[in-house]
Amino acid sequence: MASVFGFRIVEVGAGHIVFECEPDESSYNPLGVVHGGLVCTLLDTVTGCAVHSTLEAGVSYTSIDLSVSYLRAVTVESGTLRATGIATKVGRRVGFAEGRVIDASGREVATATSSLLIVAP
Amino acid sequence: MASVFGFRIVEVGAGHIVFECEPDESSYNPLGVVHGGLVCTLLDTVTGCAVHSTLEAGVSYTSIDLSVSYLRAVTVESGTLRATGIATKVGRRVGFAEGRVIDASGREVATATSSLLIVAP
Amino acid sequence: MASVFGFRIVEVGAGHIVFECEPDESSYNPLGVVHGGLVCTLLDTVTGCAVHSTLEAGVSYTSIDLSVSYLRAVTVESGTLRATGIATKVGRRVGFAEGRVIDASGREVATATSSLLIVAP
Amino acid sequence: MASVFGFRIVEVGAGHIVFECEPDESSYNPLGVVHGGLVCTLLDTVTGCAVHSTLEAGVSYTSIDLSVSYLRAVTVESGTLRATGIATKVGRRVGFAEGRVIDASGREVATATSSLLIVAP
Repeated sequence: MASVFGFRIVEVGAGHIVFECEPDESSYNPLGVVHGGLVCTLLDTVTGCAVHSTLEAGVSYTSIDLSVSYLRAVTVESGTLRATGIATKVGRRVGFAEGRVIDASGREVATATSSLLIVAP
Repeated sequence: MASVFGFRIVEVGAGHIVFECEPDESSYNPLGVVHGGLVCTLLDTVTGCAVHSTLEAGVSYTSIDLSVSYLRAVTVESGTLRATGIATKVGRRVGFAEGRVIDASGREVATATSSLLIVAP
Repeated sequence: MASVFGFRIVEVGAGHIVFECEPDESSYNPLGVVHGGLVCTLLDTVTGCAVHSTLEAGVSYTSIDLSVSYLRAVTVESGTLRATGIATKVGRRVGFAEGRVIDASGREVATATSSLLIVAP
Repeated sequence: MASVFGFRIVEVGAGHIVFECEPDESSYNPLGVVHGGLVCTLLDTVTGCAVHSTLEAGVSYTSIDLSVSYLRAVTVESGTLRATGIATKVGRRVGFAEGRVIDASGREVATATSSLLIVAP
């Protein structure tokens, strides 16, 4: 689904990842701003990938929950959104990650925390 | 954005709303299940609309936060997803809503809570 | 800690539990209302116990996260708080529960969702 | 209630605050670890105070929600807990804050996000 929205990976390391995307009017809701679902999808993606980047090959994961704070409305004027995910702690069974999205001028538009179940083969 | 995913309203009343959608493989993530972002988008939609349905004409709202629990993975086998939003409390300045998504066999796949800022004209 | 606050169990069944407590001024914060921490403690208790009530002897659990919505301020005038926890889904590795707190006049003062890790012996 | 648990302020500035406390067995739950409610109370306190520290005299606030991730169990062996709150964004009507708790050896035991309603006189 990341491709539906044109998400692209711009950085990746052990425990952190950065995606970017360009919001456009196809993601607007009837209130005239970008649908919160786009921001949630970005944050679900980066928190999951941040934990994923710490796992050994063959180990998988699935999201348990995602909690999103919407700090500012997003519009086409926001410009490129940059979403960073960081793995806070990855245990044997559960991983935790944080995500944040900034707009082109560096202002935070949303933050999130997520917990994920680690699924060994 | 609801139209990106083919969401459709199937019920609406004061303080509650139901949307449905058909998940397909265009929403899959690389793990082989529907991206959590689709479920978040559904839940952000129904919690917002549930509160919206209680507001007088001209009064608007914006999401403050959304907290999603992923109870079960969603695949094309899940069939039609049915998402219900209920306004728990709508005050003069803040509204609260709950959402849940069930699959075609009636099993809960996700729940959410959301708080929303009420914006008077 | 439940005893610190005088929590008492008033109902319990497979997958649901009810606690009550009497908020008093010892739990006030400097803003002149009951500290949100009391409500969180109640909700953490009932969501955990609701899942616990479904587990076989010897199986334990630990909270992964708790997300609380504060619908109304609590004061001594709220009277007896009644907190209900319901297990939404308990799998082999993760359980989910919802909690809600009502005041003596039946108004909801807070709701919560929680996910918990199931720990087999 | 902060005094019930022996919380003490050890640092405060515009938009950030640090509390400490010593967990003891009076806060244990029946599972043999410190009740999650203690950690929630700490996090509710520091997120609220972080936003409060940015407000002009006479402006008040009330918590809308609190979302807590429990990274590690807390016991008396955890030693002094240090909880930091940071205001992420404070607008005219809503403020956002993040909190984290570390144990005496510097390991994160919990994180939280909170949104708060700003109440002008």
